[in-house]
Amino acid sequence: MKNILVIGAGLSASSMLRYFCENAKKEGWFIKVGDQNGDLAKAKVKGCGQAEGFQLNGLDPKEREPLIQWADLVISMLPAAHHIEVAKDCIKFKTNLITPSYISDQMKELNQECIDAGILIMNEMGVDPGIDHMSAKKILDEVEEQGGKMHIFESFTGGLIAPQSDNNPWNYKFTWNPRNVVIAGQGGAAKFIQEGQYKYIPYTKLFRRTEIIKIDGYGEFEGYANRDSLKYRDVYDLQAIPTIYRGTLRRKGFSKAWDSFVQIGATDDSYILEGSKDMTKRDFINAFLPYNPHDSVELKLRHYLKIDQDDIIWDKLVWLGIFEKTKMNFTEDVTPAYFLQKILEEKWRLESHDKDMIVMWHKIVYHLNGKYHEINSHMVTIGEDQTHTAMSKTVGLPIAICAKMILNGKITLKGVHLPIIKEIYDPILTELEDYGIKFTERKLDKAVLYDVIV
Amino acid sequence: MKNILVIGAGLSASSMLRYFCENAKKEGWFIKVGDQNGDLAKAKVKGCGQAEGFQLNGLDPKEREPLIQWADLVISMLPAAHHIEVAKDCIKFKTNLITPSYISDQMKELNQECIDAGILIMNEMGVDPGIDHMSAKKILDEVEEQGGKMHIFESFTGGLIAPQSDNNPWNYKFTWNPRNVVIAGQGGAAKFIQEGQYKYIPYTKLFRRTEIIKIDGYGEFEGYANRDSLKYRDVYDLQAIPTIYRGTLRRKGFSKAWDSFVQIGATDDSYILEGSKDMTKRDFINAFLPYNPHDSVELKLRHYLKIDQDDIIWDKLVWLGIFEKTKMNFTEDVTPAYFLQKILEEKWRLESHDKDMIVMWHKIVYHLNGKYHEINSHMVTIGEDQTHTAMSKTVGLPIAICAKMILNGKITLKGVHLPIIKEIYDPILTELEDYGIKFTERKLDKAVLYDVIV
Repeated sequence: MKNILVIGAGLSASSMLRYFCENAKKEGWFIKVGDQNGDLAKAKVKGCGQAEGFQLNGLDPKEREPLIQWADLVISMLPAAHHIEVAKDCIKFKTNLITPSYISDQMKELNQECIDAGILIMNEMGVDPGIDHMSAKKILDEVEEQGGKMHIFESFTGGLIAPQSDNNPWNYKFTWNPRNVVIAGQGGAAKFIQEGQYKYIPYTKLFRRTEIIKIDGYGEFEGYANRDSLKYRDVYDLQAIPTIYRGTLRRKGFSKAWDSFVQIGATDDSYILEGSKDMTKRDFINAFLPYNPHDSVELKLRHYLKIDQDDIIWDKLVWLGIFEKTKMNFTEDVTPAYFLQKILEEKWRLESHDKDMIVMWHKIVYHLNGKYHEINSHMVTIGEDQTHTAMSKTVGLPIAICAKMILNGKITLKGVHLPIIKEIYDPILTELEDYGIKFTERKLDKAVLYDVIV
Repeated sequence: MKNILVIGAGLSASSMLRYFCENAKKEGWFIKVGDQNGDLAKAKVKGCGQAEGFQLNGLDPKEREPLIQWADLVISMLPAAHHIEVAKDCIKFKTNLITPSYISDQMKELNQECIDAGILIMNEMGVDPGIDHMSAKKILDEVEEQGGKMHIFESFTGGLIAPQSDNNPWNYKFTWNPRNVVIAGQGGAAKFIQEGQYKYIPYTKLFRRTEIIKIDGYGEFEGYANRDSLKYRDVYDLQAIPTIYRGTLRRKGFSKAWDSFVQIGATDDSYILEGSKDMTKRDFINAFLPYNPHDSVELKLRHYLKIDQDDIIWDKLVWLGIFEKTKMNFTEDVTPAYFLQKILEEKWRLESHDKDMIVMWHKIVYHLNGKYHEINSHMVTIGEDQTHTAMSKTVGLPIAICAKMILNGKITLKGVHLPIIKEIYDPILTELEDYGIKFTERKLDKAVLYDVIV
């Protein structure tokens, strides 16, 4: 019997736990699932003979250590900052570890200790990061093998609402952490390189410089630049590539409307809005607009942002209810970003029948045999329900499959790693296809060299 | 004989030292002036029998302490962060202290220790902060005394180029720390209150929401909001005032053009621009613009910022040389803000005959005897030359006069203070008039109640 410990049984653990339960008998696994919420952990493995859910404070070494000692493999679904503590325990007890989070510098430093302990710590094994790395690296390695010289690498991912549940003018609902959506793009200019020229987009222009992407059968999307595309030159071993650009997908038209909130300052999370406890939604918007004893908040906003009478973004703003004279009933003053988030949560809430959608898109241009070639690759996954969401499947299944491969000896790698090695990504991508997480590749007759990244 | 120690002999110390030298004999003073640059310190008191200049590392307690022990009064012209160390020495040796810098929380905490030591530490005794407090508080106290109820307090200060030296399309030259001009307004939304409504302006809109101010004989200016006007409700004892707004003055039209740099991200000081060491000015601007193999940097910028063919801001941008294919020759990669600063320093440099100008403007509206009254007050000071600049005079003379009043016993106050007490501001404002630093007050027939702070 192989022992699996899962720390954290939240939304993104559901599909992983289903996979474990379905395969427990065949593979000879016993799964222990600990969560702050013991009932939740129990519910997630209900009916599974070889699994047990219980209350666990994953941050308490005394609770955590005996379990890690028991396990052959640990999966940490804790908030990213806490993986490092779990990792140190795993080294101590020689237990393998998988996390879906971005690798930290502290984590990288554990590489030799992991090798010495004979274990693997696999990071970034979710969807973004995770499936993005695996699917991109697969194409990049194939091109490399043929002797192609990489010219353009673009990659976009978005967590969106499925077409069948897409019924609001923003074509968006919160399918993931709302706070991260509100503050997305803050904290520094977006950086990328295009045709050898470094390009920088400040927050104030980020949502106005989107790239339009069409995906057969799913229509148009738009992508805005992620914070730092440059560091992926090292991750993907593309140091000399002239163009590298990673971004986030939204439905076309979202960003221009969202920029209204950026421009007035409503997404700021750095200060407390005095008196916001007692503000209506209308007061909130008015706090960012010039004072005038006569003009309406509506007209002031239109004028401030130069929104034409017939601009579609106006319908989006009105639909959100931002001009309503209703209070939010906060118990204390809040930041602008928090106030906005709470307005949005009322409108961008998932209904019980709603399904989410994960969309990923890569564009790769390379030079081979005297000409440029282009490959486009995309993956669209739609959630089953509100438990096995697209997010839960695309985050959880790569972890689950990776866990299986470690436990059955298919992965023998040791040290601290990302899923950018053929030995890892090939079998995982293949098995993901059984679960409908499948990339469609298209070779273009003619490469589009100077695509308009605006 | 009374002993004065001046730590720091930079630009803003010149007029103060001239005052000390002119009055040393009559008042019975001996002045010691220490600066990192000993020659500079010597030059500033050359020909003055009762003063001595020398090399001093003001940050070294061993060098500093015997001098503070010797002195009856210390004037710290060190960078603001270092006043606190000097203050602690002053308490230890029971020596009075004056600084022109904003009071820090650490400084406030020394109040009781100062009282126990029987000394005065006077902070914010320059121009802004300094003369702004004194001149505003004088009017506010007079209104208070009459029983008026304060309704609006607005206050603006600007360090500008004198009309006779104003010969460029920006109507601006660097008369003070260029870096502070480039990063002005960053680090959080500007906050104020208007007619009882809290108002917030993000950096991205700061230079588009200016208030126009006309000053007789000097033409039009514009003011943009300072970071936090709200805290002055406590400083000026105006807790219940419906409108309080403090800002910075520029010549009309400056801010709209400056906003071009804000919008493209060229004022960002938070990251290093990769490859900037080898960039031309044109490359620098292009780093913030979409890639295109054909379009000119000029057209891309026009389109990005929607600058019309005949817009005056275009002339301003071109005049700065931002499209020139000349390298800056940095020895290493720099931040966008630094790159921009160096471009601007070439063009906004003071010529040897240029004179600077300090402009201050207050608007006070109050309710008394059933009606609203308005007082406008302004001060314009023009520099004599590049030593006795308007900045040097308006920063240095209040300190010098305050020093005299402490040494001759006219000020007997103890503790940590700001110049907002009648006992302090009245005689200082009166003597400043002898040096041409004079406010012109005007009572309006009819108060302008809802002035357009946009």
